Amino acid sequence: MRAMTVAAGLIALPAIAAADPLPSWNSTETKDAIIAFVDAVTDPASEDYVPEADRIAVFDNDGTLWAEQPLYFQGLFAFDVLREKAAEDPSILTSDPLRAANEGDLEGVLAGGMDGLVEILDVSHGNITPEDFKARAAEWLATATHPQTGRPFGEMTYQPMLELLSYLRDEEFTTYIVSGGGIDFIRAFSEDAYGIPPWQVVGTEGNTSYALDAGGTPTITKDGGVSFVDDKAGKPVGIMRHIGRRPIFAAGNSDGDFEMLDWTTAGEGPRFGLIVHHTDSGREFAYDRDSHIGQLVRGLDEGPGKGWTIVDMAADWKTVWAE
Amino acid sequence: MRAMTVAAGLIALPAIAAADPLPSWNSTETKDAIIAFVDAVTDPASEDYVPEADRIAVFDNDGTLWAEQPLYFQGLFAFDVLREKAAEDPSILTSDPLRAANEGDLEGVLAGGMDGLVEILDVSHGNITPEDFKARAAEWLATATHPQTGRPFGEMTYQPMLELLSYLRDEEFTTYIVSGGGIDFIRAFSEDAYGIPPWQVVGTEGNTSYALDAGGTPTITKDGGVSFVDDKAGKPVGIMRHIGRRPIFAAGNSDGDFEMLDWTTAGEGPRFGLIVHHTDSGREFAYDRDSHIGQLVRGLDEGPGKGWTIVDMAADWKTVWAE
Repeated sequence: MRAMTVAAGLIALPAIAAADPLPSWNSTETKDAIIAFVDAVTDPASEDYVPEADRIAVFDNDGTLWAEQPLYFQGLFAFDVLREKAAEDPSILTSDPLRAANEGDLEGVLAGGMDGLVEILDVSHGNITPEDFKARAAEWLATATHPQTGRPFGEMTYQPMLELLSYLRDEEFTTYIVSGGGIDFIRAFSEDAYGIPPWQVVGTEGNTSYALDAGGTPTITKDGGVSFVDDKAGKPVGIMRHIGRRPIFAAGNSDGDFEMLDWTTAGEGPRFGLIVHHTDSGREFAYDRDSHIGQLVRGLDEGPGKGWTIVDMAADWKTVWAE
Repeated sequence: MRAMTVAAGLIALPAIAAADPLPSWNSTETKDAIIAFVDAVTDPASEDYVPEADRIAVFDNDGTLWAEQPLYFQGLFAFDVLREKAAEDPSILTSDPLRAANEGDLEGVLAGGMDGLVEILDVSHGNITPEDFKARAAEWLATATHPQTGRPFGEMTYQPMLELLSYLRDEEFTTYIVSGGGIDFIRAFSEDAYGIPPWQVVGTEGNTSYALDAGGTPTITKDGGVSFVDDKAGKPVGIMRHIGRRPIFAAGNSDGDFEMLDWTTAGEGPRFGLIVHHTDSGREFAYDRDSHIGQLVRGLDEGPGKGWTIVDMAADWKTVWAE
């Protein structure tokens, strides 16, 4: 009977493999292109076959795996942390950008430029251990809710992209996040939300130091300030530093991802570039060339000529939000 | 018959698992301590059980996984590259440290201090793509030979440590290198020598940039200069940045590894700190407190009090060099 059970399990396997790996994607050219690529690189008989160790897939996070409107969620988190700290000690509001953030005045924050944003990050993200920071971020993501959808921010992920991540991993790809967002912020939820462990997250990095605390315990501290910006030309650099190998699959949604896709798809052999185009004002948000967040110009103009696949969210996705 | 074969295979498994996982280690307290730790953290019935995702083991490279005398091999590589370049264009020898390196004058190089070393690294490691650099380093490691042993440098690895890496991976640990050496230099041989892929190497990092080359091809270039020193207090910082989780096992050989072991073993739950003490002047080299390379003082003085295990190379290892 035991042998029979094993045999029945073996016979059932092909049926499982033939099930639709991307059920939330409509049957469009986009879906066909993704599946044709994965089939080619995983078929040992194909001339496009790629060994498992080289099946590296990189994904931008904001606007690619989850939403990014009306503002990067990490920014909203920073404002909330700042407000909490200022309620306890108003004397920390030492500049116009900090006061604007405390009042939720986005325009006032943006008027302070990059220096103002770094000030806000220093106050909200600094002087804390990475572990405590991740616990604080995870709690915020589970409890704070998005102004339009009412969902907790941690559930503002895209169901079709979750399926794509799982599909690639089932086909022995390794999936990485490569984000302009902060590496510790993303690590607070990447394992639960995406099945991506901390060591497969590449992101913007803050200054971090090691010292013995007052009790002599070895302690790592986030000191504030930014030591590496993982955006635009920083993305290929961050990938090479963390992964050390050029991916064969890259997905993004804004011109901040252009260099990552360009470098990925310029490699020899089969490559796949994917751009999520936000075309769905009903279920999500519609924005591209003129957006203050996630601006997409070069991807639309140059991407198709480079063979990249443009996801039309409204047409290609049956559902948007994680189930 | 097929079912019988499967059954026979299953029955054979416990016998394989019971084979000595560390055959090049003598039966000493050191070997017993390693095996007792691994047994405890991998036994689901043990109160010290650790889930697979947390079984992170970090290893220093120079002096821990391979030799480091008479000088870090990457330094010898840098001198050779510099000599090659200077033979083609002597005008690159613009300073005393560069001229000293070109003449193989180690004392002259050290007289130039850290600035001189960075100059030598800039000339020997800069202005090249990471891929080309790795190919050059791999060729050097396969062909240049060690002055005392006559072995190619790439084969100056320690057989007992190779067995330890394999043993830990067999027990579902993930093994990382965390080295003061250059990340790209180590990646040139870590997969072949240690079975450690590029994304599990943490090391000192140089400045790297991304740009389109003259033909419009996306290109990453090593620019020279040092952006992150993965030594001493830098090691815990590098681990947190790359891995994002505190290891449960750390191995080193010098005081450059002290903070990595201290932080690792200060964590809650079962932890293991291992120091390779170079006591074997016959088969390898004997050095510790007064060495110009791999100086070990604090590890010997404070390590035992912290519960770390000190490997006595002469007594604990049956063989030294990779077979």
